[in-house]
Amino acid sequence: MQAPQTAAFQPPRRILMGPGPSDVPQRILDAMARPTIGHLDPAFTTMMEETKALLRYAFQTENKLTFPVSGPGSVGMETCFVNLVEPGDTVVVCINGVFGGRMLENVKRCGGVPVVVEDAWGRAVDPGKVEAAFQAHPEAKLLAFVHAETSTGAQSDGAALAAIARRHGALTIMDCVTSLGGTPVLIDQWGIDAAYSGSQKCLSCTPGLSPVTFGEAAIAKVKARKTPVQSWFMDLNLVLGYWSGEGKRTYHHTAPINPLYGLHEALRILAEEGIENAWARHRAQHQALKAGIEVLGLDFVVPEDERLPQLNAVGLPEGVDDAAARGRLLNEFSLEIGAGLGALAGRIWRIGLMGASARADNVDLCLKALKAVIR
Amino acid sequence: MQAPQTAAFQPPRRILMGPGPSDVPQRILDAMARPTIGHLDPAFTTMMEETKALLRYAFQTENKLTFPVSGPGSVGMETCFVNLVEPGDTVVVCINGVFGGRMLENVKRCGGVPVVVEDAWGRAVDPGKVEAAFQAHPEAKLLAFVHAETSTGAQSDGAALAAIARRHGALTIMDCVTSLGGTPVLIDQWGIDAAYSGSQKCLSCTPGLSPVTFGEAAIAKVKARKTPVQSWFMDLNLVLGYWSGEGKRTYHHTAPINPLYGLHEALRILAEEGIENAWARHRAQHQALKAGIEVLGLDFVVPEDERLPQLNAVGLPEGVDDAAARGRLLNEFSLEIGAGLGALAGRIWRIGLMGASARADNVDLCLKALKAVIR
Repeated sequence: MQAPQTAAFQPPRRILMGPGPSDVPQRILDAMARPTIGHLDPAFTTMMEETKALLRYAFQTENKLTFPVSGPGSVGMETCFVNLVEPGDTVVVCINGVFGGRMLENVKRCGGVPVVVEDAWGRAVDPGKVEAAFQAHPEAKLLAFVHAETSTGAQSDGAALAAIARRHGALTIMDCVTSLGGTPVLIDQWGIDAAYSGSQKCLSCTPGLSPVTFGEAAIAKVKARKTPVQSWFMDLNLVLGYWSGEGKRTYHHTAPINPLYGLHEALRILAEEGIENAWARHRAQHQALKAGIEVLGLDFVVPEDERLPQLNAVGLPEGVDDAAARGRLLNEFSLEIGAGLGALAGRIWRIGLMGASARADNVDLCLKALKAVIR
Repeated sequence: MQAPQTAAFQPPRRILMGPGPSDVPQRILDAMARPTIGHLDPAFTTMMEETKALLRYAFQTENKLTFPVSGPGSVGMETCFVNLVEPGDTVVVCINGVFGGRMLENVKRCGGVPVVVEDAWGRAVDPGKVEAAFQAHPEAKLLAFVHAETSTGAQSDGAALAAIARRHGALTIMDCVTSLGGTPVLIDQWGIDAAYSGSQKCLSCTPGLSPVTFGEAAIAKVKARKTPVQSWFMDLNLVLGYWSGEGKRTYHHTAPINPLYGLHEALRILAEEGIENAWARHRAQHQALKAGIEVLGLDFVVPEDERLPQLNAVGLPEGVDDAAARGRLLNEFSLEIGAGLGALAGRIWRIGLMGASARADNVDLCLKALKAVIR
């Protein structure tokens, strides 16, 4: 068999203002290029422990079981569901966009019995409907919702939703893929039992890792399961032996060493800035973008008080060809913005201001470029 | 909450001669540090198509569905099982080490009915026992075996085992995590229906990606399933839309961009060397190591004709403390070798000669260092 002849890949330089990945600072890229060491090396173990502490800060939690899953956000999501849903469990699932729908798929594939609470795409989850769902289904054991719906840019009220679940004796799984590091995610204060995020959004790391956190009640539920977790890779009973840091570290799988160097550095950058400052920066850049967007005459999909600062979904202007316009942004301005997903495909654009991408010159470039392609 | 103060992580430089990761060439580390682009960027799509072609070369296959799963080898393993095993399917599973046992776990968690063929740890899978298992279980639909058992260094006969399954109308899943790129893995010639590997062994890339390949019969089986695949993330019906390269690429998950740059470069290095030359290099370095190991008076776990050149399991010399000796190798020689796993923990060492680690100066260092710590 002939060996393929292929040139080295030299990626173009882009400004990443889509729904993720966001711009990755050179510090993080440099960290990823450091020498690979073994995943059981004492030096690696030290770095893992630091990463766990830094993640606790990002999640604003004291949860011991806080670590990066060795896979993208979708694996973090599935890790939460396969561990916390047992066949026959009733789960209240809130759907107000693509990722709520993906939660529903997960519940079904775990043998859970879903109770769906639907809200319009572009709106926050309505706590009143969630309360009603629990009243109609007192047997419900879990609430699952997306804090920051990446497909629309709507932000739901994590504190209010978790409080409803708690009042009804249910645990809460929260998707904070797009919110972590960009807008407050207060795991302990809100009383969230399990949450997952992604490395490539407001943490500005490369994609491929999914920070997760589990509280004591969630761990107790996993340990009390009557059926085995259907996934070997995601079974927290096994993963715990590797990430727990208690006593001997048991081999489970080979962790993705160099990407973890990158996440460690990304979390250091967040700690240096201070998470409150990061939230404020995302808000400030959103305000600047919003002012420019309004001048351009574009409409936001989400009402102002339910809007995520870091993900701005706007309706496509009349008569503009979606793919052609995004192609021009990429080719003429090296600027990536996101297309619509699912029901909103071809109808909206999603402009990310996440992590290192939330900066004034990006906002300026984006507004200039948008003006050029929609006129 | 106080932000943790953490210094930048500066990993020590190690010589990696354990069971993986192996030494990662600077070219690959440099590739991983190139600018991050979007996972739907046309430039990224081009790189993905090249990676698929390069992986077909590594697997020696024409299989269109050949791609890197966005997770470590364990996720590649689980991807094969969750797609190809339906509840109630009888699966012949060969166990001659840790990773055969992990296959069994996967079969059980998919609701399969396992028929276990056991061989001693340190020996190849016995084709006679596999034939007998199929004769006793004509209903068996799948054969699962580990080509290169990473826990012992034993190599099984992929061609012979796949032929037995085919004669009995069963499909074959093969683990070639430790063999791909180091010793012949001939997917098409042997008639393997599904196989998975890892990036961090003989491909010498960083850990975190799992190359997989599926033939037409495997794809037909997935498409004909009566039950949904239990994992959303690993469901090939969904993954196909993203990796197939046919027509529109559907968003499934955010691929780990920069690690994929690294894998692309690792596969380019393999193609430049030529896979036959890579196999010959692994054999030659094994011969050199073997000669030195025999001078030291250490015994190989695996009989000579069943030995993997790239993973050398040797018995611990009488009176040597396992952890203390490996600690000295790490601290005095910056050399990592592997400990025993499972039943062999504390009784053997595993010396890897994988990918870029299979070089003369590594062999020399290893022999010198071993001599120092066992005397």
